[in-house]
Parts: sequence; structure tokens; C-alpha cells
Amino acid sequence: MELVERMLSGALQPLSRLISLVERGYPAVTEIMKGIYPRLGRAYSIGITGPPGGGKSTLVDRLTAVARSKGLSVGIIAVDPTSPFSGGAVLGDRIRMQQHYLDPGVFIRSMATRGSRGGLPTTTRNVMKLLDAFGKDIIFVETVGVGQTELDIMETVDTTLVALVPEAGDAIQTMKAGLMEIADIFVVNKADRPGADRLVVELESMLMLSPRMNQWQPPILATQAINDVGIGELYREAKRHQEFLESSGELLRRRRQQRKEEFLHAVEHRLRNRLSLLMSENERLRSLLGQVENGEIDPYSAVEITESEVLSRGRLPGVGQPP
Amino acid sequence: MELVERMLSGALQPLSRLISLVERGYPAVTEIMKGIYPRLGRAYSIGITGPPGGGKSTLVDRLTAVARSKGLSVGIIAVDPTSPFSGGAVLGDRIRMQQHYLDPGVFIRSMATRGSRGGLPTTTRNVMKLLDAFGKDIIFVETVGVGQTELDIMETVDTTLVALVPEAGDAIQTMKAGLMEIADIFVVNKADRPGADRLVVELESMLMLSPRMNQWQPPILATQAINDVGIGELYREAKRHQEFLESSGELLRRRRQQRKEEFLHAVEHRLRNRLSLLMSENERLRSLLGQVENGEIDPYSAVEITESEVLSRGRLPGVGQPP
Repeated sequence: MELVERMLSGALQPLSRLISLVERGYPAVTEIMKGIYPRLGRAYSIGITGPPGGGKSTLVDRLTAVARSKGLSVGIIAVDPTSPFSGGAVLGDRIRMQQHYLDPGVFIRSMATRGSRGGLPTTTRNVMKLLDAFGKDIIFVETVGVGQTELDIMETVDTTLVALVPEAGDAIQTMKAGLMEIADIFVVNKADRPGADRLVVELESMLMLSPRMNQWQPPILATQAINDVGIGELYREAKRHQEFLESSGELLRRRRQQRKEEFLHAVEHRLRNRLSLLMSENERLRSLLGQVENGEIDPYSAVEITESEVLSRGRLPGVGQPP
Repeated sequence: MELVERMLSGALQPLSRLISLVERGYPAVTEIMKGIYPRLGRAYSIGITGPPGGGKSTLVDRLTAVARSKGLSVGIIAVDPTSPFSGGAVLGDRIRMQQHYLDPGVFIRSMATRGSRGGLPTTTRNVMKLLDAFGKDIIFVETVGVGQTELDIMETVDTTLVALVPEAGDAIQTMKAGLMEIADIFVVNKADRPGADRLVVELESMLMLSPRMNQWQPPILATQAINDVGIGELYREAKRHQEFLESSGELLRRRRQQRKEEFLHAVEHRLRNRLSLLMSENERLRSLLGQVENGEIDPYSAVEITESEVLSRGRLPGVGQPP
């Protein structure tokens, strides 16, 4: 595929074009992903999540500046969830990143979650792969943490930063368990505001009470991203987490798990497509669906009939396009 | 099934027992659901969602009192999401409902979403069905709205109340689109606090700008649940929405859609179970999965191989237990 070749040789426009194709789920996705596969696995990914208003974009912006000063190339994926109770990243946040817009070593892409219902879009991983294949050293994935997004991000990136602000203190009590699962590093941003010290102490005591699954003890860092305070240390802690993951074998384990999940997800997606095609083509199943809708048959009996119909055909019908 | 018979004849203990079986996903679920199927469809369901701290439990409590005063029996399902950034319903909230704990006409059940990753547990619908078959006239489903929960609830219940508090005003700007999709009725609770009038005005102007999918214009009600202010009117508006749904044919359409979704979901679930069984039993697929985990094959090629393996067998293997 010529577009892939050009992207792999470092051209930016083909990269943008490929990301668009992947985002829209065009049939070419399979071909693209096969094409870039041999070039995957170099990039290190860092996710930044947390409630709205935590300064996540500014944190990414400043961390990007540190990475650039070390000569590393950076990809940024900003995911804007449109969940009703979360708020979404406000456009103004992005504007703070504009210092990097003219830097050819930084590639920034926004993605909306509209349609994927609060979770991280399944296309996010493919976009990350494109950035990886393109040769980015670090990929930042920034997203407002709501619903299952923050669990998705933990499973998608290598290091997860959870960014909180001092005002979050009161809410912390009710979010303990979830936060503990997710954060590799806690960031108390806007730490010049009242309550920052208290929040750090609260997080510390939560961490002491919470048994870790592995040997990593999540550090808690106070930052003021907007004033560039604490960013160097945050960067070093992220680096230290990377080294921990590598030396402990955890990185390898995670990547294996990610590949497995992705594969199983793709198989399921394919079967689901085939099933819905069968549902629309097969006369018996169409009429069964009508009975279900009318409440003339209980869904459990209907499932059994569907199953035997699918199996009696010997196979599910083919569909044109893989997931 | 004897337990089902006893529940259908009005015994409370078998109801609790059946709910537990359904929640835990025991194999008996299919048998239970088939058994209660002929008795379904009488109950009217009202969902109450919104950010934490909106007084949702108190609203349910007061609406329950109104329903009871009209001689209607009530079921309450309180779903506690354990999403890290949402908080979850605090136990203390439940305590406010205790006036109903001794009322045999009110059945209260808490469900945790742990495991279903932020969405409404798939078992919620089955528990609602048990309450419906048991003969409850009204079923309240209360849940903190986060991630996809509030979309799930909209698809699960007949009437959706979105409960906000005056302080939510500032956040409203960023959540417009989502709220409009969900709410059949807006409740500005704790309306004695500053900012209540402003929030009502903001919601009104949002509603004017937002095209409705149907003829229902969501009302905005100011309440103080804790002082029992505005509850009668809220109850009447919920009733008015029910009448709108019935007379417009919308209720019928929604129930058809719910049945269809539920059926398709169950079919997918069954196929997924069969697939994972095949994955563990089939030597070729097991070794393929190993290659995927090791990164020795790209997932898309692996999907194609899996597919042909599944199809060459002619059928997926059987599994013991339906969804």
C-alpha cells in the first residue's frame, strides 16, 4: 500500500490520511494494519486521565516540552469524551498546546468518543499504532476519566498518570478503590491552590492501605503545569515507571495481554457482523426477531432457536469487511 | 420451577432468592426467565440518574411515598457504580429510604456495578423483570450517571428523570448534548440553594435550542426532596410522560426495541461463550493465540485464520449454559 510506504518513510500527510481512514473504519484498515505491523513496538505510551478541569492538556504540553528537549519525538492523542455528566475537554485547553503545533517532531490528533459510549474509542489503539510505526518515541493519550474510559486507558497505555486538583479532596473518599487500580503515578496539579497538601496526604494514606498487585509504589507528585513547576520530576517518575515495567517483565506481560485482548475483540466483532448479516438474510430468523419484538416469544427460547438455525446452516455467512 | 411459582403467588423470600440467582448469573436464569415471561409487561419503570450528591435516593424515597399513598406497589433498584471518578452512592443515602423498609408494598434492592465497568449491569433488566412479574406497579431504578450508565438507563426504563443540583450550573455548559438525549424530565433538586433559578433558566434555554426527537417537551421541575417540596408535581409529570408514551405509541416502540436489543445481546453472549470454549479446546487456535501474544503474527491475519478454522469445523462447540 503506497500510502503506508510513504508514511513509514516519514511523510506527515500520509500519516494524517491513514489516521482518518483508521478512525472511520474503512475496509482498508486491515491492509494498513498488516502493512505497519513489522514496524510496531518501539513507542512508549503514557496516558493522562482524571476529572475535567485538572489541567491534563497543560500537563501533556509541558511533558512534551521535556521530551522534545531530550530529542525524542512525540505523538499526542487527545480523546474528548462527550458523556453528559463528565463535561469534555474544552477547546481552549487545546490552545495551550499550540507551542508544539509548528514543531514537526510533535504530532497532535484529537479524537471524539461520540458513538463509543463513554469508553475509549476502539480506534484509539490503531491510531497509537500508526504513531508508533511512524517512529514516535513517546505517545501521550489524554482523556477525561469517566465511566469506563479510565479503565480502558489503563489497559491501553504503558504508564497511567491520574491528574487531580486540590478541590478533588472531598470526592476522593468515594473513589478510592477505582483510583488505586488505575494510577501508576498520581499528579496533584494546580498545587498552588488550597488543599493540595491535604490531598497529597489523603492519597498517601489511601496508598498505604491499598495492597498493590505488583512491586510498583505509585508516587504522588505536586505540580503546577501552567507554571512549569514539578514537570521535570514528573517526567523522571514516568521514566522510572517505564524502567520498572521493563526490568520486572511487566511491560512484556502487558503487551502480551493487550495483543490477546485486541485479537479476541476483533474475532468477536467479525462474528457479530456475520451474525447480523445472517439475521437480515435468513427468513426464519427475521420472523423470529419479529416475534421477539412483539413479545410473542421469550428471548431465551428465541436464542436457542437462533443457535440451532445458525448451526444447522453449518456456517455463518461471509461479510465483506473485517473489523 | 417451584421457587418461581411461589414468587408469582406473592411470597417475598422466593423473590429475594430469585434475584440473587439472577444477579449471580446461575444456569437457572434461563429457566427462571422463561417461567416468569407470561407475567411480564405490567410494571412501569422510572429511572433516576444524575451526578453524585443530587439527592437521588431522597427523590426516590419521596416518590415512593406518593405512589404508596395511591395504593401502588413499588420496587426500587439502587445501582451503585464503583467508577473511580464518579463516586458511588454513599451508604448513608440508603438510610433515608428506611421509612419504606418495613412496608411490605415496597421492595428495595441494591446492586453493584463492579465488573460491568461503569455501565448498568446486564442483570438489572432481569431483576426488573422479576419485580414486574411479582406484580410491582412501579419500578424505580436509581443510579449515579457516569460513563455509559446514563445511556443504558435511558434504554432500560420508560421514563428517565435527570436530577441536578444548583451547583451543577457551571458544568452544564459542557454536558448539553448528552443531557438532552437522556432526560424526559429535569429535576433541579435542593432548589433552596443559591443558583437554582439560574440553572432552571439555563436548562430552559438549552431545551429551546435542542430539537426533540419526539413531541415530548421535557419539563424542568424545582424540588426540595428532603423537605418534600415539589414531589407531588414531579410525580404528576412522570405520570403525564407515561400517558404521552402510551398515547403516542412510543411506549410500544420502546418496548419492542428493548426486546430486540436484549435478544441480540443474548445471542452474542452465547456465541462468545462458544467461541472462547473453542479457543481453549482447539489445538490450532491455542497455538495461534500464543503467536498473537508473542507478536509473531498480526491480529488481522490471525482473525482470518480463526474464522476459517471456526467455519471448517462446521459449527461452534456447545456450551452448557446460556447467557
